[in-house]
Amino acid sequence: MSDRIANLKRLFAPESVAVVGASAAPEKAGYQALAALAGFAGPVYPINPRAQTILGHRAYPSLGAVGRPVDLVLFVVPAAACVAAVEEAVAAGCGGGVIMSGGFAETGSPEGTAMQERLRELCARSGFRLLGPNTAGFFNKGIGLIANFAPGIEHIRRGDVAVVAQSGGINLIASFLVDRLGSGVSCGIGLGNAVDLDAADALEFLSEDPGTRAIALHLEGVTQGRRLYQTLARVTRRKPVVALPIGRDDVGEFARSHTGNLIGSYELKVAALRQAGAVVVDTTEDLAAAAAALAFGRIPPRRAPGIGVLVGQAGAGLIVLDRLKSCGVRVPTLAPETLTRIGGLLPPMTYIRNPVDTGRPGPSFADVLAALAADEAIDAVAAWAIHEPAAVRPEEALPAARARTPKPILFGTMGPEAEVRATAEALRAQGIFTAPSPERLARVAAALAEDASGQWRLAQAPEAEVTAGARFAPGMDEHAAKQALAAWGVPVPRGVSCATRPEALAAFRSLSAPVAAKILSAEIAHKTEAGGVHLGIADEAALARALDALERLPLEGPRRFLIEEMAPAGLELIVGAVRDPSFGPTVTVGLGGTATEALRDTATRLAPLSLVEAHEMLAGLRAARLLDGWRGAPAVDREAVARVIVRLGALLAAMPEVREIEINPLRAYPRGVLALDALVA
Amino acid sequence: MSDRIANLKRLFAPESVAVVGASAAPEKAGYQALAALAGFAGPVYPINPRAQTILGHRAYPSLGAVGRPVDLVLFVVPAAACVAAVEEAVAAGCGGGVIMSGGFAETGSPEGTAMQERLRELCARSGFRLLGPNTAGFFNKGIGLIANFAPGIEHIRRGDVAVVAQSGGINLIASFLVDRLGSGVSCGIGLGNAVDLDAADALEFLSEDPGTRAIALHLEGVTQGRRLYQTLARVTRRKPVVALPIGRDDVGEFARSHTGNLIGSYELKVAALRQAGAVVVDTTEDLAAAAAALAFGRIPPRRAPGIGVLVGQAGAGLIVLDRLKSCGVRVPTLAPETLTRIGGLLPPMTYIRNPVDTGRPGPSFADVLAALAADEAIDAVAAWAIHEPAAVRPEEALPAARARTPKPILFGTMGPEAEVRATAEALRAQGIFTAPSPERLARVAAALAEDASGQWRLAQAPEAEVTAGARFAPGMDEHAAKQALAAWGVPVPRGVSCATRPEALAAFRSLSAPVAAKILSAEIAHKTEAGGVHLGIADEAALARALDALERLPLEGPRRFLIEEMAPAGLELIVGAVRDPSFGPTVTVGLGGTATEALRDTATRLAPLSLVEAHEMLAGLRAARLLDGWRGAPAVDREAVARVIVRLGALLAAMPEVREIEINPLRAYPRGVLALDALVA
Repeated sequence: MSDRIANLKRLFAPESVAVVGASAAPEKAGYQALAALAGFAGPVYPINPRAQTILGHRAYPSLGAVGRPVDLVLFVVPAAACVAAVEEAVAAGCGGGVIMSGGFAETGSPEGTAMQERLRELCARSGFRLLGPNTAGFFNKGIGLIANFAPGIEHIRRGDVAVVAQSGGINLIASFLVDRLGSGVSCGIGLGNAVDLDAADALEFLSEDPGTRAIALHLEGVTQGRRLYQTLARVTRRKPVVALPIGRDDVGEFARSHTGNLIGSYELKVAALRQAGAVVVDTTEDLAAAAAALAFGRIPPRRAPGIGVLVGQAGAGLIVLDRLKSCGVRVPTLAPETLTRIGGLLPPMTYIRNPVDTGRPGPSFADVLAALAADEAIDAVAAWAIHEPAAVRPEEALPAARARTPKPILFGTMGPEAEVRATAEALRAQGIFTAPSPERLARVAAALAEDASGQWRLAQAPEAEVTAGARFAPGMDEHAAKQALAAWGVPVPRGVSCATRPEALAAFRSLSAPVAAKILSAEIAHKTEAGGVHLGIADEAALARALDALERLPLEGPRRFLIEEMAPAGLELIVGAVRDPSFGPTVTVGLGGTATEALRDTATRLAPLSLVEAHEMLAGLRAARLLDGWRGAPAVDREAVARVIVRLGALLAAMPEVREIEINPLRAYPRGVLALDALVA
Repeated sequence: MSDRIANLKRLFAPESVAVVGASAAPEKAGYQALAALAGFAGPVYPINPRAQTILGHRAYPSLGAVGRPVDLVLFVVPAAACVAAVEEAVAAGCGGGVIMSGGFAETGSPEGTAMQERLRELCARSGFRLLGPNTAGFFNKGIGLIANFAPGIEHIRRGDVAVVAQSGGINLIASFLVDRLGSGVSCGIGLGNAVDLDAADALEFLSEDPGTRAIALHLEGVTQGRRLYQTLARVTRRKPVVALPIGRDDVGEFARSHTGNLIGSYELKVAALRQAGAVVVDTTEDLAAAAAALAFGRIPPRRAPGIGVLVGQAGAGLIVLDRLKSCGVRVPTLAPETLTRIGGLLPPMTYIRNPVDTGRPGPSFADVLAALAADEAIDAVAAWAIHEPAAVRPEEALPAARARTPKPILFGTMGPEAEVRATAEALRAQGIFTAPSPERLARVAAALAEDASGQWRLAQAPEAEVTAGARFAPGMDEHAAKQALAAWGVPVPRGVSCATRPEALAAFRSLSAPVAAKILSAEIAHKTEAGGVHLGIADEAALARALDALERLPLEGPRRFLIEEMAPAGLELIVGAVRDPSFGPTVTVGLGGTATEALRDTATRLAPLSLVEAHEMLAGLRAARLLDGWRGAPAVDREAVARVIVRLGALLAAMPEVREIEINPLRAYPRGVLALDALVA
């Protein structure tokens, strides 16, 4: 394992590079790969049995002939030659390699799939690390290394934002978009088919890379979701990660043709990314902007960070405010002393309750900004001003304010291109991000807030009292399953399993009427349909009639009765826990009833999870207001619902033999909940 | 009225301009306003009683002294002096003016509000047109006119996209964003407090402006919504309009401080804009991009236009496909002959079913694009390729394809800035829009599709059979109200209003049991609570008992019985029609039941509306699948529901005396619907 980690670093930050398939013919890929290495300071070894030197580098007939183990090998040979070439690299003690060719599993052909499988086994066995196949490669600006065929990478400026993309094309797009914002890229990595090295590995490397301060992650399919989740949860504690998952709509068929991977559930990817502390965005432009902004600095972990908005023009302020609120980001009211201080700096009649609108900005801009940032409720400031040098010079005012606060300051402006660019460059040198529109400013401010609240949630310990409860056995009857659930801390109706009528009568007397009487028998799967359920039994005569009916059911094996208290009416929810093939144990909550089910209004998280996450799930339901007492109904006990979510998650995480468990309905009351029925698979 | 229209044109496209408050002191606004007019070719008249010439223009002591009626007057005087100045302009026969000063209704002060009211009356009385107050002004690049204080407007290139913004700052931002995309602006108009001239007026002018091919519209509050809607519906038939409404979240308090206007319902604004054929976007960047792209050409009216997607890199293709599908835009399967033709142009194993993925693009790019565009199902093509001149030169390939199809072609690319810019410039000259990211490409393609389907919907005639039905009178009883509804074509349960027991018995015999028996009396508002409703009456004995009970109700006035057939169970909806103070008659549909109500899952349109719009409302409900037979329930009669929506809308539009009418519930069946209860206000 430590080999694999060491080799990961040798691949991405090599001291030496070899090109297998190097060529002296400029039209050949083997020439272009070598030429792209021009900026790399370490030794470069062309491997070509028929050449002496190529592009000034001495050529070798084989990797073995180099005489020392090369860190990184670029394989510029056809797919069919790759397995042998990688075997040679392994034998020569090389660290890792990049296979740019396609022709593997993404083609859907048996040969391609078999070759890819061979590569996978080779890496797993040897510790050799492989990027690709079917990738444009990667670049590491910190060491001037371009191990990538794509043109123009030399134009991307060096900086502290790393890009990891499943697709080589998106790696390039995101990197150029970072560059367009005036920031720079440390490493840009295209994963391709990800036969060995996947997004989790790339994150692992980048979290240690001293040149990287923020990471932009593009995800299509995720085959090892649980591993990615666990890695991300570690990495985001050190560095902010912004993620762009693809596949909101059905794009599966085309996606498979791309990297041979399934695209998976979008909702689950988003849930896992957020839960691991990543900021989830919708577009490559937001991906680049949020990562670039976060590279300038994060808000410390906060449950719900507050953003201060300062604008020179109200129209833009309205947009920033609208967007922040739509994202659920707090724009808190300022403290009275802040209002007094800002009020003294601005003309009367300006709106200063946050947003702070300076009207036409003037010399007080820096002081107003500093006063806003100083407010206790404010964790970062988003400032907007049209480019108007006669009124305010942001390249002077913003750094002046920044010197007076450790809180992140984000800026947005628009105006003549050359002038705005000069302003943004000057601000970048002072550690201030500049956005090109009010919405983009709001989006990056929201990203800082999401990053901070993600970190706060990650720091919340899982609920302490969840401990391993009873186990579930195949063929358990309803009563046994409910008792097992109860042992996991999920409240169930009081009930007694009875073998005889006298036992049933005794049970009835010990419970509060009305009760239900149900048949317990392995022979009956659907009790209600079989006439095995009698509800609303209020007295002993009714009980006797119910037992008569249950005794008449034709059964071969043993027959027991479940006498169970009827649950009062309440709000019905569904809580389910499912083991996902990629992400492992997950838990989902939604409201019961046809309408809410048809609306697919559910929230999902990976399990185990904290009580805080469970509360966020409830808050995230569109129908959340029903929990708070809609139209005169009483509010239900959210804490009790959240505890059931946590416990069902803990149960699934602890018991590999359970594939799926669903409580339907979970009835919620002003105090407490009851699991009325549970299905275990 | 014709004066008002002529003066609108004199204001925005003047032949002469005067500056009231012109100054020779460079630090004064009166100097800057004059200086900004440097590019205007017509006569410019500084008005200043104490100057001979300013900036080379002969100065005049008053507007009257100019000796001819000036078209446009810029008022660069304090708020308090504005009313007198405008009176003078009116007296001098001027066409229109701009008041840039603030200090009016937006301050909330009684003086400011009173002055604004004076200006409004002055304009209404005289036909003089006024932009502002409290606006940065406007510019008309076609005649080199900058009637605007904001700096840098001279850097915005001239082009064919017009911008209309409530806020002067957003006017500038959107105009610069259009410029950044390589396109140019014809006119940029900031409305400010919009005391006289509002968005509808600006649209009216721009629809006639020969230099404008597409319009970008930014909206905060809308005080005369119905007028805006009617104007838009006319304008979008001639030119595409892209709209950015603000106020998704609650930003009311800050908004009022900005232009003194209420922000209004976001949903209603969006519904009205779409229904009038505008494309609604979420951000200033999308506003600029969609308008710039539409200026290159529209898709002809189509119910559901199909987009062809051509990509050089699958990763970007996946994003474009995902975004288009998420927007509900069709990416249709190609015809077999198209697949054959494209298959012959590309290497095997590439995905060509739309998206068409060329793999690394090559010389066949233009031919593939042309073949894709030639497919009958395709109305526009969105093409993406990384900047890679060695593989494909878009500035040659795309125009080659464009020459072979009248359908719009949109392009997107990313790469080194200078090179990408040169490509975009070359393409722009050939009538092809270039987007800077895959999502932006998808967004503008979706905008073209939305524009075309908006035009198709606008062309659908309102349902022919809706004709004026019965009128509603105050104090109508339930039966009369239902009969009036029935006269408007809304099905109601069969029922008979009876004065006596024999009449009731005859009614019972004429109807299908079971029936309901209800009291009809102006004295009883809440029938059910008063014991005035008896349900499920299956036989004559039960009817007699019910009538006994109804006869016992203590009433002073006359007493009638409603004998009505019971409606079978079905899917319950709510259809309501409300008169909005700004937008006039509106109609709303949603599913019944607590859960769907709590989820606020409703769709709204302005009335009257076509049957097609009513169907779109149903399709737009998140719970739409419940209509199609969810979990074994039968699908309901959408056509019948849509007809009720149309008729309720027609009813409200035709009867000014009805403020609000709600059918709750409307019960929907596999065939037909029944309005079970209706509330009229």
